[in-house]
Amino acid sequence: MGLTIDGKFIANNIKKDIIKKVEYLREKGNIPTLAIVRLGDNPGDISYEKSIIKLCSDVNIDTKKFVFDNDISTKELQQILGQLNEDTSISGILLFRPLPEHIDENLIRNSINLNKDVDCMHPLNLEKIFEGDYSGFTPCTSKAALLAILNSGIELDGKTVAVINRSMVVGKPLAMMLLSNNATVTICHSKTHDLRKITKSSDIVVTALGRAKYFNKDYFTNESIVIDVGVSQDKNGKLSGDVDFEDVVNNVRMITPVPGGVGSITTCVLLENVVKACMKEAVLI
Amino acid sequence: MGLTIDGKFIANNIKKDIIKKVEYLREKGNIPTLAIVRLGDNPGDISYEKSIIKLCSDVNIDTKKFVFDNDISTKELQQILGQLNEDTSISGILLFRPLPEHIDENLIRNSINLNKDVDCMHPLNLEKIFEGDYSGFTPCTSKAALLAILNSGIELDGKTVAVINRSMVVGKPLAMMLLSNNATVTICHSKTHDLRKITKSSDIVVTALGRAKYFNKDYFTNESIVIDVGVSQDKNGKLSGDVDFEDVVNNVRMITPVPGGVGSITTCVLLENVVKACMKEAVLI
Repeated sequence: MGLTIDGKFIANNIKKDIIKKVEYLREKGNIPTLAIVRLGDNPGDISYEKSIIKLCSDVNIDTKKFVFDNDISTKELQQILGQLNEDTSISGILLFRPLPEHIDENLIRNSINLNKDVDCMHPLNLEKIFEGDYSGFTPCTSKAALLAILNSGIELDGKTVAVINRSMVVGKPLAMMLLSNNATVTICHSKTHDLRKITKSSDIVVTALGRAKYFNKDYFTNESIVIDVGVSQDKNGKLSGDVDFEDVVNNVRMITPVPGGVGSITTCVLLENVVKACMKEAVLI
Repeated sequence: MGLTIDGKFIANNIKKDIIKKVEYLREKGNIPTLAIVRLGDNPGDISYEKSIIKLCSDVNIDTKKFVFDNDISTKELQQILGQLNEDTSISGILLFRPLPEHIDENLIRNSINLNKDVDCMHPLNLEKIFEGDYSGFTPCTSKAALLAILNSGIELDGKTVAVINRSMVVGKPLAMMLLSNNATVTICHSKTHDLRKITKSSDIVVTALGRAKYFNKDYFTNESIVIDVGVSQDKNGKLSGDVDFEDVVNNVRMITPVPGGVGSITTCVLLENVVKACMKEAVLI
């Protein structure tokens, strides 16, 4: 029977650590505060926003909501970010993406104060990840996948990891973080031939395809550690990962479930980043 | 008998293309000009400088040398770069590295005009490579290794490539460029276990270890394509790559020699970047 890596348990431990840090900051007169900037009223965004506000409240991080119409101009959005950048009561800024098509995303992400960029949008923060420099912020989903591995007692040094995703929000930053931990990393994608050969010969497989139950047990061995970042709906409308959990769980060494796996950790990474931003502002780090 | 990938032949073709572009630019009144900034008189730097000046002269690119003492301060170097940034007669700036230890390299690389950064030092240009955006400049050695593959009639799409190097001047940028070409990329390094298993199961192997003749034929198959970026001296003081060429050449599909392989292409990439910088200045691209 394979072990299930409990994302909620890991998230709870991270939360406990955050609570302590927030307490320390508040005692020093610094109030960690997240500005959430949402354009339009996409139900997914609203639901995510609610869960962030609830989680922030749980750990005593303040939140401030800034909601604008979807037809806001790039210039107006830049001005708002400029105000939030200057506002010393704001520690970090989370701008929901994807942005509307008429917005110049490159101008916007360059407009965020580097030290408030808790979602790691700014090219200079992303470049730090490329270099293996963790003095900035880390992309939340990539870091959550890494934490799922590191918090399961797995020693990454010398392991082989297949990362099935090459995006800037998951696969590429994750690959760089794995390299910093001395893993040997194979980056796979839709054009990869014989994916099964690669997953079967890797110690750890991280999948972020967004195709429900795509991977069955044939893709793994009894020694595989499977980190499932994918979230989509299966044919019955049920939330599912990239991996057919029922088929796989008893045929691998460890696996993260969906829900209750990497996704549970992701928002905690955002909160960690808010605390880090507040510490930067307070010149404590 | 394996094929030898002729770096000099590839370099000559690139040079012919550069000559045409330089001619076009000069006709329009734009003179591609490379500023070479050297600190101290390291014999390696001086020798590299001479070879660059010779090659620039071959393709009708102008060069200007700026030589300073090794004890120049970070601030003074920033001022010099500031002047070169402003100087409209300079298309691109090449600053020899490694810099003396007392220089703040991070400040320096952020001081170079993004559009004159022909050696791809600036974090914002490196971040573009991370994203797969080639509107900036490419690191010369990484691009040279890519060109060695692309100019040998090898279709990268769907191929597996092992890159044995995780530095910011070779391995990481190269891995990103290979991904943009739809290759499946494994990044290996000193902590990688069972390197032989990985090299033997990859279609293409790019080595940049700097250990003379480290790889013998046991690391490859008859179908391997071997790109040797390493340059060091063997025990007899002879220039050698990471691969034991004599042992390997007849047991693989293709291989680049050292010298006469990737190294021959590298300086051509620098010249391509100077032409690109001149075109940016002339608003032709």
